[in-house]
Amino acid sequence: MTDVVTMDKIVSLCRRRGFVFPSSEIYGGLGSSYDYGHYGVLAKNNVKARWFEAMVQEREDIVALDSAIILHPAVWEASGHVSGFSDPLVDCRTCKLRFRADHLDESHCGRRPSKKPGETPDCDLTDARHFNLMFETRVGPVEESGAKVYLRPETAQGMFINFKNVAQLARRKPPFGIAQIGKSFRNEITPGNFLFRTREFEQMEMEFFVPPAEASDWYRYWIEERRSWYLRLGLRESHLRVREHDADELSHYSSGTSDIEYLFPIGWSELEGIANRGAFDLSAHAEASGTKLEWLDSATGERYVPHVIEPAGGVDRALLAFLVDAYDEEEVAGRERTVLRLHPQIAPVKAAVLPLIGKDSAMVERARGLFEELRRAASVEYDDNAQIGRRYRRQDEIGTPFAFTIDEQTIDDDTVTIRDRDSLAQERIAIGRAREHLLDRLAAPWRSPKPE
Amino acid sequence: MTDVVTMDKIVSLCRRRGFVFPSSEIYGGLGSSYDYGHYGVLAKNNVKARWFEAMVQEREDIVALDSAIILHPAVWEASGHVSGFSDPLVDCRTCKLRFRADHLDESHCGRRPSKKPGETPDCDLTDARHFNLMFETRVGPVEESGAKVYLRPETAQGMFINFKNVAQLARRKPPFGIAQIGKSFRNEITPGNFLFRTREFEQMEMEFFVPPAEASDWYRYWIEERRSWYLRLGLRESHLRVREHDADELSHYSSGTSDIEYLFPIGWSELEGIANRGAFDLSAHAEASGTKLEWLDSATGERYVPHVIEPAGGVDRALLAFLVDAYDEEEVAGRERTVLRLHPQIAPVKAAVLPLIGKDSAMVERARGLFEELRRAASVEYDDNAQIGRRYRRQDEIGTPFAFTIDEQTIDDDTVTIRDRDSLAQERIAIGRAREHLLDRLAAPWRSPKPE
Repeated sequence: MTDVVTMDKIVSLCRRRGFVFPSSEIYGGLGSSYDYGHYGVLAKNNVKARWFEAMVQEREDIVALDSAIILHPAVWEASGHVSGFSDPLVDCRTCKLRFRADHLDESHCGRRPSKKPGETPDCDLTDARHFNLMFETRVGPVEESGAKVYLRPETAQGMFINFKNVAQLARRKPPFGIAQIGKSFRNEITPGNFLFRTREFEQMEMEFFVPPAEASDWYRYWIEERRSWYLRLGLRESHLRVREHDADELSHYSSGTSDIEYLFPIGWSELEGIANRGAFDLSAHAEASGTKLEWLDSATGERYVPHVIEPAGGVDRALLAFLVDAYDEEEVAGRERTVLRLHPQIAPVKAAVLPLIGKDSAMVERARGLFEELRRAASVEYDDNAQIGRRYRRQDEIGTPFAFTIDEQTIDDDTVTIRDRDSLAQERIAIGRAREHLLDRLAAPWRSPKPE
Repeated sequence: MTDVVTMDKIVSLCRRRGFVFPSSEIYGGLGSSYDYGHYGVLAKNNVKARWFEAMVQEREDIVALDSAIILHPAVWEASGHVSGFSDPLVDCRTCKLRFRADHLDESHCGRRPSKKPGETPDCDLTDARHFNLMFETRVGPVEESGAKVYLRPETAQGMFINFKNVAQLARRKPPFGIAQIGKSFRNEITPGNFLFRTREFEQMEMEFFVPPAEASDWYRYWIEERRSWYLRLGLRESHLRVREHDADELSHYSSGTSDIEYLFPIGWSELEGIANRGAFDLSAHAEASGTKLEWLDSATGERYVPHVIEPAGGVDRALLAFLVDAYDEEEVAGRERTVLRLHPQIAPVKAAVLPLIGKDSAMVERARGLFEELRRAASVEYDDNAQIGRRYRRQDEIGTPFAFTIDEQTIDDDTVTIRDRDSLAQERIAIGRAREHLLDRLAAPWRSPKPE
């Protein structure tokens, strides 16, 4: 784990460069809640766009959905969340802190933070009690007749309850999938580790409905497909692994679940889960709602409840993995530089356009012209403020893969230099070819230059 | 208003073609809550992308933000929402329904739906009481120590509380803006009119921070800028108007607010509001948090609290306007057709690729080849299922602007026809030029063919 950056460095870079701010900071913050700044929004949008592209646009067997965050409360009764989506918690009567009973080993006593609850002599733990993780609120005038509803703890149920709507319209037979990106909320008792576990988070989930006999093949297929998505976007293979759940970890309805794990600063942790959920979800909603949620194969006359394979990832967690994997420090010509070696498709800014001398009106004019041309094709930034070295470092820190520099020679011969963030190589090309050159390089396959 | 489609027709088309479903339908629905289906997601994503492009990507003076839905509760104390964001409600003791006291004229008695409350002899209304529109929930284990928090009723406060973070990082001086797209929640007592007013909705808001002396110029600028955005995306000019609020409609802190109104099926109604909010928001948060939220002009040494111009639109409402404006029915060769004359940039699918005879393997092969080429450039659909006329009608109903048809002649001479959704003109072009032809037509300026 020696080459894994500390979380503190990631948090600090994110704050310093405006990727992620602690939320409500001027009011003292709200624990484990974050606001994304400009570059954070751009990078997060890239993660979501790549997922949507891979899961919906490039496929004919998956359609998109965007269901409400507040669904009918009966949905969560039927899904089992009202009765079973809870954590066992213990309180310490001495330090007044609350711990997850199943995570006591990783928790620290509030009085003696170097010790674990239970190991501390003055620890006085209650028995474990169950706390539901769903946020509750009320629809309608609160004081009286409001109906209790929940903020969804996952987007998945939106797909199950719309199975029939989609199946009727999509003119497809199983296997087919429904995909959704959206916010979910869990009242976690112990959120933490920056973007890794927050109470409010964004999911990318897809429910793939298949004939029962094909379920285990599709389960394998989706594990490999999702793993390869992360690899294509630059995560190093040695920092990614698939861990199959043991029998005792499985939900009662699941016949197989695998986690794609990434080597985060906190150790190997779940990046995305792929679950073979069987017929559990559709059957539960069919029974609770009295609606037939099944498939009639018009060719064979066979009627069945499709099984579900679910790849469920987190947007924030994926972005965190991309940032961790990309973070690098190195010495260049005697100076330290911090650089985010992000895949160009994830990088918030694809290229910077920099007049070598920000006060030279001829250079500025050429640079502005190039900037105006490039911005119609990609996310680019113009910067004439500060010495060129400082401007390069600013772009390195936000992961901008390319920088075009307009210098004296540009005025003479219409060429610009293009600087590569990772190799620091500078190549001189015709300014008229800059746009095409940039688009070619953005479209080229990419591998992290960091050692595996 | 004769050429305005009824809301029922829009609801029905949205349901029939999978744009929008009533949410939680298999459980009897949850009033005024909707789930977006495949085409709805694609169209909504287009609306958001066009806004983000116009407000962030094409400008250097606006940066993006994505703040949390659940902020520190002190934010809503300072903003005035805890004390003042409420509706006056009256109950009817007879029919047990609840009405907004300020909307009694538009409400109907539960017992005698053709009559209004107060006009019905057996109506027995209580005095008006105020109900706060913010959804409340609790963070932390609910049974005891959970802290009361709110689901944000607007995204705007996220921008105000991050003003300092952004101002420090963005290396910009006023005028500059912060833009955000995201979900907000209001516990409306009388939601309704399909996507027009829902309790859960998505906003596109931008807070533009300006020197106080420039506020009224920027206010005018943003009214015109936002109006022209809707026009560029195809809304007919005669169905769009700007209505300046009267003095008695203004919030106490606002020195000017204008609504961009659209002629919805329910009449002229707000599409987007542009408000000159003065220094109210930053001053309120500065006072409540003890943080200086002001600007020091390093050139003049002047220190001031920037004024705020806010264009605030709704994603769902904008999409509804685009659908309403686009909906058309006409008779073509003795048959009725329904067609969505959406701007190509808003249309969920840009082109359909159709083999004339779906069982002809040569046509299918050519059509699949064209489809695979086009899908890398745009959202396209392949369809070989049903008679060609039926397939055209399906695409007309979802607003697909172009259809490529592969026929016998394609096999002979490598040409395809391209059919224009609106004019129904068919042009024959070389299949090798199809991609370029499509991209050119998608990029061309567009005006609704519907009469003003």
